[in-house]
Amino acid sequence: MSIQTISWVNGHVKLIDQTKLPGKLVYIHCRDVKTLWQAIRRLSVRGAPALGVAAAFGVLLGIKSFSGSGSRSRNRNDRKHFSKHVDQISDYIAASRPTAVNLFNALARMKQVVHRHPDASVGGLRNLLKKEALAIYEEDRKLCRRMGTFGARLIPSGANLLTICNAGALAAVDYGTALGVMYSAKAKGKKFQVYACETRPLLQGARLTVWELLRSGIDTTLICDNMAATLMKQGKVDGVFTGADRIAANGDTANKIGTYNLAVLAKHHRIPFYVVAPRSSFDLSIKNGRQIPIEQRSKEEVLGFGGCPTAPRQVKVYNPAFDVTDNRLIAAIVTEKGIIRQPFVKNIKRVFERRNHSGE
Amino acid sequence: MSIQTISWVNGHVKLIDQTKLPGKLVYIHCRDVKTLWQAIRRLSVRGAPALGVAAAFGVLLGIKSFSGSGSRSRNRNDRKHFSKHVDQISDYIAASRPTAVNLFNALARMKQVVHRHPDASVGGLRNLLKKEALAIYEEDRKLCRRMGTFGARLIPSGANLLTICNAGALAAVDYGTALGVMYSAKAKGKKFQVYACETRPLLQGARLTVWELLRSGIDTTLICDNMAATLMKQGKVDGVFTGADRIAANGDTANKIGTYNLAVLAKHHRIPFYVVAPRSSFDLSIKNGRQIPIEQRSKEEVLGFGGCPTAPRQVKVYNPAFDVTDNRLIAAIVTEKGIIRQPFVKNIKRVFERRNHSGE
Repeated sequence: MSIQTISWVNGHVKLIDQTKLPGKLVYIHCRDVKTLWQAIRRLSVRGAPALGVAAAFGVLLGIKSFSGSGSRSRNRNDRKHFSKHVDQISDYIAASRPTAVNLFNALARMKQVVHRHPDASVGGLRNLLKKEALAIYEEDRKLCRRMGTFGARLIPSGANLLTICNAGALAAVDYGTALGVMYSAKAKGKKFQVYACETRPLLQGARLTVWELLRSGIDTTLICDNMAATLMKQGKVDGVFTGADRIAANGDTANKIGTYNLAVLAKHHRIPFYVVAPRSSFDLSIKNGRQIPIEQRSKEEVLGFGGCPTAPRQVKVYNPAFDVTDNRLIAAIVTEKGIIRQPFVKNIKRVFERRNHSGE
Repeated sequence: MSIQTISWVNGHVKLIDQTKLPGKLVYIHCRDVKTLWQAIRRLSVRGAPALGVAAAFGVLLGIKSFSGSGSRSRNRNDRKHFSKHVDQISDYIAASRPTAVNLFNALARMKQVVHRHPDASVGGLRNLLKKEALAIYEEDRKLCRRMGTFGARLIPSGANLLTICNAGALAAVDYGTALGVMYSAKAKGKKFQVYACETRPLLQGARLTVWELLRSGIDTTLICDNMAATLMKQGKVDGVFTGADRIAANGDTANKIGTYNLAVLAKHHRIPFYVVAPRSSFDLSIKNGRQIPIEQRSKEEVLGFGGCPTAPRQVKVYNPAFDVTDNRLIAAIVTEKGIIRQPFVKNIKRVFERRNHSGE
């Protein structure tokens, strides 16, 4: 994949405006944190891993505007103000979207940099923060490759796979989670084909996943979300692969609306349902999915598409951006540490050695 | 409801162009059978009961062009040609859409009129055919009211209901099947609210059902199809009501794509799933749903909406218009003869007294 979803270039964030895909490949250059915040909010950049990277880069944009004394100052007051400034930027970015925990985990890592270096100057902290943000960026590439390698083992030869939303290169730095597994399988020479759910209301499947998979030469068929059940009944689905926005300690998984639907259908048709997500998508501070906040988005998203109205404007609309899949519906979770199977409460703890990433 | 979905006016068919709803309420006047055929094909008129009425009216349009000798002729040759002409028109109309059996059942009734009156003149047959078509039209109104009365009993006070596609006034002559049950419940003073699945790709739920329900003052909330599962999980659905395009002798039911999806979800969440359909939607000549032909429609329907593209054009698309719900997922089928419950094979036979409607 040669898609540069998000990157740090010449002191600013360059990202693909995903609201314009597949029609146009357009980049947005964010030179201040407000522009980035808006890009996150309107989903120009989306996908849990990419949101983690965007949040870290957002802190770098935010500290550009810090106006203490000289950057070499070790003045306690300056440091204190800088630290407070980082906290404020982080809070601001954290308010952009509530569900994907990668965003909060990345912000926690950035704030930890400041707290871990009580003697560093403001200039030193700036350098350390830049290093941390770029580390989060680089890690994402490696984690996705590792998940790809583990996950590819789950794809039988000649398989028909089903996916929802976009958990690919456009949701991460360069490879993706659920689609990363497919890219890895393809690189290993495996033959398979993919059904992509269009993923209403914002059609990330139709617009983004199809665009990516076609670029990669993967045999792809688009379906409407409500067609998955009949495909499964006909024996045309051998496995479902999805990403995750937040995974609780018991394996309950929040992901794009419609994911839980697919998990119930997969169970009914005895098809394995796989989640692919890095450690940074886990929130071990919560016991189960009921504690995951679900973002409610505007009714406009459901009332039309691309300026074309689809329903009478005066109707009420229910538009949750995510749903939660119960752990018992999940066959396995593919992470960079390996494939986690049931019982999840025990095995998630074991694989991650009881460390809480957000506290690292 | 004061919606005149389809009617026979001054020797031609007047119907609402449902492709223009909810934006515009426009009527099409079909003065020849080809115009009607095209209206059926592009779904300007749709819904199983309405398709039965349209097919019967289509025969009336088709016989207008019959040019034998004078209409009072009892000439054997004229009669034979007229009978053949009716068969040809019927075959032509039958080729418009393959799944809804009401269309075939109505055509069979029209052909039977000719075969049952071997001594009638061509003019006499014209009158008898007109009488039969108008009978089919009038029956639809009565059947829907009767289904409404039976079905309303299934709606508990304060219920939250879920429906898909449009099985309302726009799918029938004036009242509808699944929505007819709701209109009847409302008339009885019951309180309830309805979630309408938007029903991709052609959005009959968003465009037609929402339009109808709002006109009727029923509390309505629009959702994307993939949101039904999470609604059910939250306990926000007490019953699912759908129409049917064809029901096999064992109760297996073909209906709009996405219906089977809802039935599996309802089973998983222990929510009753109801089908509402008249006798004319049953095809007792087939044992089960595997024998129901499923219409495949063009990829264009999935690749965009209202001229707005939603996916890269070169992608493959799977676009079945219907799916089949297994009888074991259905709690009851509401018909004009009463509510049929499991075991369906036995009870469907009993209720309809082993008569094959298409052969009546």
